[in-house]
Amino acid sequence: MDSLSFKRKAEKILKAAGKEIDSVLIYNTGMQDPNFLYLTGFTSGLFEYSALLLTKTGVTLATSPLEYETAKAQAPKGLDVVCINTHDELIKFMTEQISGKKLGINGSFLPYNIYKSIKSKYTPTKIADVSEKLLSARLVKDAEEISKIRKAVGITKMAMVLVQKEFVSGITEMGLASKFDRISASLGSSEPSFKTIVCFGKNSSMPHHFPGDTKLALGDFVLIDAGAKVDNYCSDMTRTFVFGAEANEAAGDKAARMTEMMDVVKQAQLKAIHSIKPGTRGMEIDRIARDYIETFGNGKYKGTFIHSLGHSLGIEVHDGPGFSPNEKTIIKRGMVITVEPGIYINGFGGVRIEDDILVTDEGALVL
Amino acid sequence: MDSLSFKRKAEKILKAAGKEIDSVLIYNTGMQDPNFLYLTGFTSGLFEYSALLLTKTGVTLATSPLEYETAKAQAPKGLDVVCINTHDELIKFMTEQISGKKLGINGSFLPYNIYKSIKSKYTPTKIADVSEKLLSARLVKDAEEISKIRKAVGITKMAMVLVQKEFVSGITEMGLASKFDRISASLGSSEPSFKTIVCFGKNSSMPHHFPGDTKLALGDFVLIDAGAKVDNYCSDMTRTFVFGAEANEAAGDKAARMTEMMDVVKQAQLKAIHSIKPGTRGMEIDRIARDYIETFGNGKYKGTFIHSLGHSLGIEVHDGPGFSPNEKTIIKRGMVITVEPGIYINGFGGVRIEDDILVTDEGALVL
Repeated sequence: MDSLSFKRKAEKILKAAGKEIDSVLIYNTGMQDPNFLYLTGFTSGLFEYSALLLTKTGVTLATSPLEYETAKAQAPKGLDVVCINTHDELIKFMTEQISGKKLGINGSFLPYNIYKSIKSKYTPTKIADVSEKLLSARLVKDAEEISKIRKAVGITKMAMVLVQKEFVSGITEMGLASKFDRISASLGSSEPSFKTIVCFGKNSSMPHHFPGDTKLALGDFVLIDAGAKVDNYCSDMTRTFVFGAEANEAAGDKAARMTEMMDVVKQAQLKAIHSIKPGTRGMEIDRIARDYIETFGNGKYKGTFIHSLGHSLGIEVHDGPGFSPNEKTIIKRGMVITVEPGIYINGFGGVRIEDDILVTDEGALVL
Repeated sequence: MDSLSFKRKAEKILKAAGKEIDSVLIYNTGMQDPNFLYLTGFTSGLFEYSALLLTKTGVTLATSPLEYETAKAQAPKGLDVVCINTHDELIKFMTEQISGKKLGINGSFLPYNIYKSIKSKYTPTKIADVSEKLLSARLVKDAEEISKIRKAVGITKMAMVLVQKEFVSGITEMGLASKFDRISASLGSSEPSFKTIVCFGKNSSMPHHFPGDTKLALGDFVLIDAGAKVDNYCSDMTRTFVFGAEANEAAGDKAARMTEMMDVVKQAQLKAIHSIKPGTRGMEIDRIARDYIETFGNGKYKGTFIHSLGHSLGIEVHDGPGFSPNEKTIIKRGMVITVEPGIYINGFGGVRIEDDILVTDEGALVL
């Protein structure tokens, strides 16, 4: 990350945290706080139990000898890196830095036991949970972020085309998922943005079914939900195919039902996408897709769309609010959100179609 | 998971939590609490924002319509699954269940804001952080768990052999990492247990360097740190090779130094492994490897072993205490721990050798 972009992001975080906060702590556990990657732009290293402290005068990263060199090699100008040898040293360092400060924490990530230790050992004058503010700071993406998401989406889109060559009778869900991941990596994804979902046949009625030993048979649904990562930014896309659709067309009721489900979901998605524009609320867009599915054919698909229409996308796959039945967040230019209606019929199968859109002044741009 | 194994694990958790606790809450966020997988054994589904409640009378999983079918399809006998449509419904359900209870939480995972909401909305009579007790319940593995880890280790061991065929001048770290992942998947790994680390040449001095565009050249170190997953259980293994070692042998000082580093690390690992037995403390084993490295050749490698000797392995890659300089945990039969000494020389390169051992009555069994 260049120093200008780093500086802008640090300012954005502090501004979002609010006037009553004079420093923000981003504290990794065994997992990374997404705000850590957002701010540092690091593409190498784990930085477990490392801490970032943002104040009006600068940003400091405290990390262990294990990753000190990795941090130094990537640190944008303006990020001070200090090497902390032991947990006691970290407490000493943090105590000096935080003491007397009005501290903002990411309460939706920071575990309770670290919060407790901050409260008792580090003695800031005030601790406030600024998690929602941090999330909102990441909602509107800048040009650099959009470019990374675009690349990730491009990879997944191409992989969804290429993977169709691998559809053969008898391949397992796990086998196909593995092939998808290979294709995605060969196109430049640093890693899957989440565990690739592949469902055959009736398994597709379970939206988060993990690939197993089920074998592909003629006339099956093939649902693939997958994403790529480019410089920490994610894509998230779902396609539902019918294996041997041509052969299937003569197969009567089952085939007709599958085709109808695909048509209804696609239509619901299009209607939703066309309604997106700055100033609308997430719940309004969800409602448009949901109403279409619920009322189609005298309500034959009522109650089958069992999740939200979509979520923000960025450093995290679920990077904040998007389109869900109760979402009051106002859609803004520069937000990147998934649109993924679905119909799930237990024992028969499911259809989901998911694309990632960028909100522009004109409406939604499908990436 | 069979119902007996499920029942045994639930009892183990409640017993570990202690007598003053009458129920334990395992509450997923966008990520899964590792105790969730430990207890349910689920190999499919994400179960975001789902909650498990353990009481003396039974175990209940509250999950959304999105994953209700996925849960029902996998639930071991004895696990009640309830479907919760909205966040409000979850609060209502949890309030009824938790009210008046002495509740144990996993404070090393549960975010501060959920803790706060439990405290203010759910009104248990007492909340205690039982995170260390939950971790300790998972430390000693049963036969089924060991068998899964063994399989994962077997896959990674074989992949480390097969991947050497892919060493060619000019391949990038990312390219080799991708080939490693393919091999591992083809051998039966459901997914990498962490992002595969591949470092060429001097990049190997950074223990958590992520694979990048660096190209392989004759005489380079090739450090690969990777793991597989089998039924949620992880392996974690590191090998350091020299590319074109034969050609390199005539290359003088550099080659001699590389060979020496490999020998010293291997020797340190062997000494540590031979010292492991039930009743020793983690810090004693770490000390043995560390002393060997620090004192070798009049201290020429002093200060180059910049991390702990190892960590427990299980559902998580870092599944609890193992061997580190301050670790007082007593080693017990049935623990599975990594042994991974290393030497890292900034600007030159690094060597790490890592194996996974099972503690038996006789000592350490290298898996």
